[in-house]
Amino acid sequence: MSMQAHLAAQRPRQLGQLTEFASFASVSGVDEHRDDVLACAAWVERRLRDAGLERVGVHEAGGNPVLYGEWLGAGPEAPTVLVYGHYDVQPPDPLELWTSPPFEPTIRDGCLYARGVSDNKAQIFLAMAAVEATLAVDGRLPCNVKLLVDGEEELRADRLDALIAARRELLAADLLLNTDSTFLAPGVPSVPVGVRGMVALELSITTAAGDLHSGLFGGVAPNALQVLATLLATLRAPDGTILVDGFYDDVAPVSAAERAAWARLPLDEEAIRAQAGVLRLMGDGDHSAIERQWARPTLDLNGIWGGFQGQGTKTVIPARAHAKLSCRLVPDQRMDEVLAQLVAHLERHTPPDARLTIESTLAGAPPMLTAPDHPAVQAALGALAAGFERPAQLTRLGVSVPINEIAARLLGIPAVMLGFSAPTDAFHAPDEHFSLDSFDRGLRTLVEFLPRLAALWER
Amino acid sequence: MSMQAHLAAQRPRQLGQLTEFASFASVSGVDEHRDDVLACAAWVERRLRDAGLERVGVHEAGGNPVLYGEWLGAGPEAPTVLVYGHYDVQPPDPLELWTSPPFEPTIRDGCLYARGVSDNKAQIFLAMAAVEATLAVDGRLPCNVKLLVDGEEELRADRLDALIAARRELLAADLLLNTDSTFLAPGVPSVPVGVRGMVALELSITTAAGDLHSGLFGGVAPNALQVLATLLATLRAPDGTILVDGFYDDVAPVSAAERAAWARLPLDEEAIRAQAGVLRLMGDGDHSAIERQWARPTLDLNGIWGGFQGQGTKTVIPARAHAKLSCRLVPDQRMDEVLAQLVAHLERHTPPDARLTIESTLAGAPPMLTAPDHPAVQAALGALAAGFERPAQLTRLGVSVPINEIAARLLGIPAVMLGFSAPTDAFHAPDEHFSLDSFDRGLRTLVEFLPRLAALWER
Repeated sequence: MSMQAHLAAQRPRQLGQLTEFASFASVSGVDEHRDDVLACAAWVERRLRDAGLERVGVHEAGGNPVLYGEWLGAGPEAPTVLVYGHYDVQPPDPLELWTSPPFEPTIRDGCLYARGVSDNKAQIFLAMAAVEATLAVDGRLPCNVKLLVDGEEELRADRLDALIAARRELLAADLLLNTDSTFLAPGVPSVPVGVRGMVALELSITTAAGDLHSGLFGGVAPNALQVLATLLATLRAPDGTILVDGFYDDVAPVSAAERAAWARLPLDEEAIRAQAGVLRLMGDGDHSAIERQWARPTLDLNGIWGGFQGQGTKTVIPARAHAKLSCRLVPDQRMDEVLAQLVAHLERHTPPDARLTIESTLAGAPPMLTAPDHPAVQAALGALAAGFERPAQLTRLGVSVPINEIAARLLGIPAVMLGFSAPTDAFHAPDEHFSLDSFDRGLRTLVEFLPRLAALWER
Repeated sequence: MSMQAHLAAQRPRQLGQLTEFASFASVSGVDEHRDDVLACAAWVERRLRDAGLERVGVHEAGGNPVLYGEWLGAGPEAPTVLVYGHYDVQPPDPLELWTSPPFEPTIRDGCLYARGVSDNKAQIFLAMAAVEATLAVDGRLPCNVKLLVDGEEELRADRLDALIAARRELLAADLLLNTDSTFLAPGVPSVPVGVRGMVALELSITTAAGDLHSGLFGGVAPNALQVLATLLATLRAPDGTILVDGFYDDVAPVSAAERAAWARLPLDEEAIRAQAGVLRLMGDGDHSAIERQWARPTLDLNGIWGGFQGQGTKTVIPARAHAKLSCRLVPDQRMDEVLAQLVAHLERHTPPDARLTIESTLAGAPPMLTAPDHPAVQAALGALAAGFERPAQLTRLGVSVPINEIAARLLGIPAVMLGFSAPTDAFHAPDEHFSLDSFDRGLRTLVEFLPRLAALWER
């Protein structure tokens, strides 16, 4: 039987299984869903076995189960790909905004609706299905495959980090295939080669021993909120340019090839503005909106608070004010360097009548970039073009993806991101969905990718 | 019996009664203290009768009882003074910081400790005691007296406003004597002739339909918190000068006489700095700290909030940000004018990628000034100098005092503030107290004030 006929014959069963997978309320980090998480993990474990994988087992590092399975029959000369995905999902709140219940998967308008179906259940499911189909049709895989299905991707990365550090030998591979990825736009298959890094910082401003009465001390006492506002206003120019000394020094320019590829992408600034739901786009006009989203660093205030926030009026001069901020980093910025630049800027701009406290700093993730001309990237682009019957695009993501950096650091391997969700799939939001067209074409893409990857090693 | 002998003989009884008065937990606006408030009001009603006042009764306008009593035996040729005070008190929290329980009045180190004893029970009690003593010794008062004892001063002024509006004839007088006042410093008797006004405003900034992911939209989406910080930073110069167009236009200069009196006051900038508990005083150096506290307008941020305020990091680009601010006003600023100036400034400085919403404005109280050379002010200064045996000072207060403005607006009378508490008495704070020396000297001052006031009308 041809692969095409096999996939067609198996489609109802595979779609039924994804529906089953998506019906688990596997919300990580919420006590009331602990049993759902464990049931979902057990389901994944069985599914890995059913797909024909070996050495299937549960690995833990103090958190939710992480599932593993492998097929190493291609031999030591063939490449080994470590496929990553996760079965945990975001909380479904606010429930009242869902058209159908989040854990009762429902097909409407050519899409399957359920929490976590796009992020990341359908995508990691398709990897299992591709392995199963190839083994069924060919009796073997063209390369060695290791599958790692995380249970805490939506929660934290430190325990996965520890787990991988403790199992370097088991997980050794030539390439990370990260299924937790997304297209540029619906129907625009794409391979993101870069992800931004992230650092964060929390600060406080103190101007007095305690809050003061504005009637008694208004006019002579400094106001922590005013100091904070004035300090935060020094961070960015009106056009969004970041005014922290040295901030852009290590930013690697985008190659002419990538810049040209981005200019051809079917995504104009008006579409980005509409996606964001903003009145107008912000940012330094010397760089296109796409470049600013993918290859330029950012500084965003994430939270500010201080003084009286209740109903009505309280004429207080607050003594303390707080802010949280974070930066997205791009190659070749270093996390520690950027944090030091931020702290130096804040210290230099704090007036003498206030005290600055850096409450915490977080080196969240470094920026990552896989060379756009890496052969595996080209293999992914080719497989996508075949699976989706249209040209695939070279993109980046503006977000941070810990597993890419963990794999690079602990396993010494580059990451190729190959996922089929669309930015309009409402991941992390009500009515999350995954298109059935992407389900079929994604499966064909993965089936296509494995021999293309193997071929690279044969050359 | 001479007044001096009478006061000495009665002192233990009067002090016992104040102790009784201060033992009521007459916290306004708290359901659990409703019975305490009513019991305290009943006690005040009896005390007014015992003092020899007539037409004693309870007046209400939908809130806590307001007590009234009068003695009009001086006849239509003599002046009528309306004495104001309040029996309600601030909540005693935090209880653990009290040395003795807040409603078990205790004498230590020459002071009576209890919640509300300084603000305002001792002071209004002394007015009752002065009336009683004068009637006992002289058989009459030198002027007509009306006493109004409020039950919601710590809560709101609108119901008192309505009550006075409905009883203009009953409350008609030549002068308001407001006992809810304070000395410049302990042992520095003073008559504040001015109080500042107050306006407040709450605003929001909106930059997007909803919060955005900083990975996806960082670099292109405006950030409501950054817009808010930058907007609020335009309000004040580093030295505290308010940058709102026209803000200072109507500020009346301080008379040479008042300015000279203030320069002689025993309160230097270091003492003010220490009182405020700040690293250094803030403000335009062209005006002394005292002038900035009493006779210059202010603009203070009272609260700001937006985005993520919890533990840890959330890399969000907040779509909404909020701020509350308020101004203290001085003669001849107008509330509506200042609010319009503020709104115009905020609108002008909101960038095109954000939307400003003025959530609410509050015209809290206009600034008030009694002419420093008003004969009744001079009578109060003279009575204080006699009672405390040291020169009394002409001061102002930086706070807003609604009753002064209500009396001016509804009864057409000027206010003289005559109280004996000290800024160190910890009103609104744990271990509130009132000195027994002020108890004795304050009573003598009030006994002295009535004939001095009457004498003004005889001239």
